[in-house]
Amino acid sequence: MTELNEQEIRNYMLEALEEANNARLIDEVPIGAVVVKNGEIIGRGHNLREHGQDATMHAEVLAIIEACEYLHSWRLWDCQLFVTIEPCLMCSGTIINAQIPSVYFGARDPKAGAVRSLYHVLEDDRLNHQVTVEEGILAEKSANLMKQFFKEIREKRKKNK
Amino acid sequence: MTELNEQEIRNYMLEALEEANNARLIDEVPIGAVVVKNGEIIGRGHNLREHGQDATMHAEVLAIIEACEYLHSWRLWDCQLFVTIEPCLMCSGTIINAQIPSVYFGARDPKAGAVRSLYHVLEDDRLNHQVTVEEGILAEKSANLMKQFFKEIREKRKKNK
Repeated sequence: MTELNEQEIRNYMLEALEEANNARLIDEVPIGAVVVKNGEIIGRGHNLREHGQDATMHAEVLAIIEACEYLHSWRLWDCQLFVTIEPCLMCSGTIINAQIPSVYFGARDPKAGAVRSLYHVLEDDRLNHQVTVEEGILAEKSANLMKQFFKEIREKRKKNK
Repeated sequence: MTELNEQEIRNYMLEALEEANNARLIDEVPIGAVVVKNGEIIGRGHNLREHGQDATMHAEVLAIIEACEYLHSWRLWDCQLFVTIEPCLMCSGTIINAQIPSVYFGARDPKAGAVRSLYHVLEDDRLNHQVTVEEGILAEKSANLMKQFFKEIREKRKKNK
């Protein structure tokens, strides 16, 4: 499997952050993800839950579906997933089902994170697939995007009162 | 919210079993699901992972996506989900994200079940949504469909050796 160096990891996370920003621009919670194989981005996604009115449209799920389509395979072996915020249960389960070996994420999600905050499902050796996890990549940028987004929402709500 | 009686619960599970059988007929792992609202089935799905070559194509996810489309909403409030086998992490997370209040399932999945076997995520009060769970509905039928399916696979493999 391709070993990534620090600069590569940073660069792919910047691509995930670009996706997060695409979500922000259309007033979706700003989370972005990319799937990489052999140095190539083969899936991209950003949160589209409100635009799609579909509970499954998280960044990671959309990036994984695109990668499966690209490879014509539900098995994303030798792939890395980069996501700006810690995956929730649904997205962590999708990562496991797609048998992705490595996940890099930015900031933790203390309310719904299933990789480090509330659960450690990606490293659960009772399941038939385990994932190598690296967290904290450009975490401040991801966290700031989220903070700014929710701050703006609160300000809009105040104005409309 | 609509309260379902035993006969109704049984009938919706038979619909989920019909979906499971649709999977079996095309050599997919035989799991089926339906989403019900106000006595009407608004989403149906059966496992399509191999045909779709997409890791997300579990019965529950497909039924939930169809129900979201039908309601033009990612929130499946006042809905019930029926599924023949205990949901995995991905599907349980999807149920939580769609805020489905009630889940009925047939047989447990000791290797990947996230509702009773390995985890109890639907009843985790640290998350922002909890689900009422009833298990064991026509469980033997669901379990037999699975057993028969895997038995046939083993027999086919033996023949091809």
